[in-house]
Amino acid sequence: MAAIPNGIPEKTIERLSEYRRTLHACRAQGITHIFSHVLAGIHGITAVQVRRDLMLIGFSSDTKKGYDVAVLIDYISAILDSADPMNIAVLGMGHLGQAITKYFNGKGLKLKITAAFDVDPSKVGTTIDGIPCYHMEHFEQMAEELDLSMVVVSSPTSVAPQLVLPIINAGIKGVLNFTSTPLTFPQGIVVENYDITTLLEKVAYFVKEGDSNG
Amino acid sequence: MAAIPNGIPEKTIERLSEYRRTLHACRAQGITHIFSHVLAGIHGITAVQVRRDLMLIGFSSDTKKGYDVAVLIDYISAILDSADPMNIAVLGMGHLGQAITKYFNGKGLKLKITAAFDVDPSKVGTTIDGIPCYHMEHFEQMAEELDLSMVVVSSPTSVAPQLVLPIINAGIKGVLNFTSTPLTFPQGIVVENYDITTLLEKVAYFVKEGDSNG
Repeated sequence: MAAIPNGIPEKTIERLSEYRRTLHACRAQGITHIFSHVLAGIHGITAVQVRRDLMLIGFSSDTKKGYDVAVLIDYISAILDSADPMNIAVLGMGHLGQAITKYFNGKGLKLKITAAFDVDPSKVGTTIDGIPCYHMEHFEQMAEELDLSMVVVSSPTSVAPQLVLPIINAGIKGVLNFTSTPLTFPQGIVVENYDITTLLEKVAYFVKEGDSNG
Repeated sequence: MAAIPNGIPEKTIERLSEYRRTLHACRAQGITHIFSHVLAGIHGITAVQVRRDLMLIGFSSDTKKGYDVAVLIDYISAILDSADPMNIAVLGMGHLGQAITKYFNGKGLKLKITAAFDVDPSKVGTTIDGIPCYHMEHFEQMAEELDLSMVVVSSPTSVAPQLVLPIINAGIKGVLNFTSTPLTFPQGIVVENYDITTLLEKVAYFVKEGDSNG
């Protein structure tokens, strides 16, 4: 990730997103209050970490009953969400693109995947999971029309570098790249390169170390 | 992520995995040496960070030509890889499970996805992308037979909590959970909970902050 424009660290932002999901699940089960150590336990971290994160965003209304779930959801949402909904396009509607779309939409988030782009004739012109799929060659011209601000790159890795220029030209502000090629963009475009292989290699490493230390 | 059994931080492990992928790509293009600032630039970080990471693993053979690509690959591999290949099973062979399998295998890694488990009758008993798909009810008994040490949880979120006990009983050592429910395991089992929504929310947040600060 490039520059951090304000004081909240990336990792805290990630955890706020995770806390909010857990809080939503709590609310759906009728839970109105939650203690920091319970929230911490669910996420495998310490209560100190939870309290530090919430202090960083200025939330301190801890009561004897714990945090008010609904209030904390609103508070985190005010930090994370933008006033206007952000439209996201998926570039590459293979298994990963479809998994992300299915997974993401219908969660009632402010972020919405509203369009997909591909080059496969069997996909272009169809609607997949409720999302229209356009030909990649129309991406630049359609980005404005569709008011797209972010893209998910889930194309084959070999194609990814060719997408950089169209993404810049389309005025996209944020890129989440799942291919194996890290993509770089000019300043002003936020990019997160995330190869899933890394996560598996990390888990494998700590399994191995646990073995040799145990 | 739970305990870190030795001195190398999680984030360094992630970056080592990323450096190695880039180094493999360099080698494939015939590049034999790379400077720390070039490697840093590809990953959008500073050269100081790269050098610090490599110092942490005891690698210091920086020459006037930069790092020797082949030597550094071997060095990182000695840190990340275990001597024996680790077999991974995917629990839930929907779009995400299939994307991960396709993506992961055929990369010549020490880690291999060797089996899938699902409950869908149209998948059970078939071979998907070269991986046999078994019924989830046979997971515990088959884990030993198949010598599984890790699982990827890519089932529907609602199903995920029911998988915890079978995973423990099967003697699995590492879990990468992509569902929206964080899973907790007893000590000795490494778990990484990774909801893709978090990544998108993070990018959206920094886009929003960039906007308001710009």
